[in-house]
Amino acid sequence: MTARVIDGKAVARRVREEVAAGVAELVAAGGTAPGLATVLVGDDPASEVYVRNKRRLSVEAGMRDLHRHLPADAGQETVAALVDELAADPAVSGILLQLPLPAHLDADALVARIPAAKDVDGLTTDNAGLLAQGRPGLRPCTPAGVMALLDEYEVPLAGAEAVVVGRSVLVGRPMAQLLLARDATVTICHSRTRDLAEVCRRADVLVVAAGIPGLVGADAVKPGAVVVDVGIHRGEDGLRGDVDHDPAAEVAGALTPVPGGVGPMTIAMLLANTLAAARAQQDVEQGAEQGVEQEVPREVPA
Amino acid sequence: MTARVIDGKAVARRVREEVAAGVAELVAAGGTAPGLATVLVGDDPASEVYVRNKRRLSVEAGMRDLHRHLPADAGQETVAALVDELAADPAVSGILLQLPLPAHLDADALVARIPAAKDVDGLTTDNAGLLAQGRPGLRPCTPAGVMALLDEYEVPLAGAEAVVVGRSVLVGRPMAQLLLARDATVTICHSRTRDLAEVCRRADVLVVAAGIPGLVGADAVKPGAVVVDVGIHRGEDGLRGDVDHDPAAEVAGALTPVPGGVGPMTIAMLLANTLAAARAQQDVEQGAEQGVEQEVPREVPA
Repeated sequence: MTARVIDGKAVARRVREEVAAGVAELVAAGGTAPGLATVLVGDDPASEVYVRNKRRLSVEAGMRDLHRHLPADAGQETVAALVDELAADPAVSGILLQLPLPAHLDADALVARIPAAKDVDGLTTDNAGLLAQGRPGLRPCTPAGVMALLDEYEVPLAGAEAVVVGRSVLVGRPMAQLLLARDATVTICHSRTRDLAEVCRRADVLVVAAGIPGLVGADAVKPGAVVVDVGIHRGEDGLRGDVDHDPAAEVAGALTPVPGGVGPMTIAMLLANTLAAARAQQDVEQGAEQGVEQEVPREVPA
Repeated sequence: MTARVIDGKAVARRVREEVAAGVAELVAAGGTAPGLATVLVGDDPASEVYVRNKRRLSVEAGMRDLHRHLPADAGQETVAALVDELAADPAVSGILLQLPLPAHLDADALVARIPAAKDVDGLTTDNAGLLAQGRPGLRPCTPAGVMALLDEYEVPLAGAEAVVVGRSVLVGRPMAQLLLARDATVTICHSRTRDLAEVCRRADVLVVAAGIPGLVGADAVKPGAVVVDVGIHRGEDGLRGDVDHDPAAEVAGALTPVPGGVGPMTIAMLLANTLAAARAQQDVEQGAEQGVEQEVPREVPA
């Protein structure tokens, strides 16, 4: 048996089209096109590529590109002042502070200045708390993208055994929360897990976000399981993930490729978050005129 | 084999003594005794008992009792104004809003007014986010109390399989996070889990917080496992927990009784949180004089 390929490129394209339709609808209803403020500090070539892709796809979806670039030696106060300016600017629906920042900057302190309602990366402590408490909020893009893939392929989650490998603040931990919110029985594994393959073999749905090339082999996959590989590593033979792809594909029921699996979903969900943020803010503005209370953005459609 | 009894009463007493010593030390060093503001709205008899115990034990630990009582028909604005007053009052180290509130009040909105640094119950979204991101903050008292019990009995957690039954915002979810922070491989179960007994039997450490009397039987306990029963239910034969105690005690290696297990730990950890909050606030005050930045309280000693 060879696993069904979970086509992240196709799903991401569909999500982006839906976002574009949502933007058009918002504008047609008299609203403003969402504005995405990408903030790049310095000239890291990888970061430049990531930011360029985000800007290009946000424009394709009909959003306003409100990119800001600061020199590599910009001080903490300068970056903080820029974040504060974007936070206060009603044209800015979402703020994306491209990480990593140059080492002399305190990234945590800068992320903390982003208002929860504009935190389209879902990185702030506020949004982490909203997720942990099961309340509406903006979710981190990569785990939200994994959920969108699982939904697109109609993977049953309620009552399923889900195993997440990796406990990063960006992916593993919010991933576990999102699967729990969908009624999966969730296990979270990490470097200290005693027998990783044994734990992974329990999984109906296995999400691997460990950051270690080829960590999960075929022996860690339950026959027929859905396997989502969040890892991406540049090797001599091109890109590979955290899952040893070809052997795992012989055992799994469905599997994401690397590249073309989770990767394209991250930007798609960033755009979905930006639209959701813009909608919530414009609801608030209209609501304020009508005396309605402020609302946090609802979870992105997935 | 009969399980070792995990004596929560004794551990709670020791934690309270340590807190009392910490309070005395703070005062001896020229600080102020921590002030605990318990807020009771209405006359629910169970809530009155809980609040009375918290007040009594806080006074025994050398704290100032800053109790406030509002009538059952107090409006949202009245309670909100009281919370705001306590939030601004430097004599108040910790605010405990006794739940449940009368049904006409929006409890979530009131909890949200408590500053994270005074949230000694660990209920706010801010503190949930800090926990989810693995940052210092005030932790919910009941799961913090379970951790203190496990530590007192030197239960190995790194690499252990921990299973949490129940996913409430108050207990199950933060419990899973605290176990994960100590390097356990953590599974979280709930009403939709397919074969609860099978999942529980994997646990080296099993924490049951489902709110269902006798839900977990001996068939769900791995021989030698450490079982912590967070449930407490009043029945015809007195109090019982979520674990079917006597049969489970034949299989487990160690087990908390009900009553006298987790119950007494909750107030002990409330006092530990209040001391930690007071220390952090007084550090901040002294720090402010010295130009040091504000800090969130560190995790309570456990």
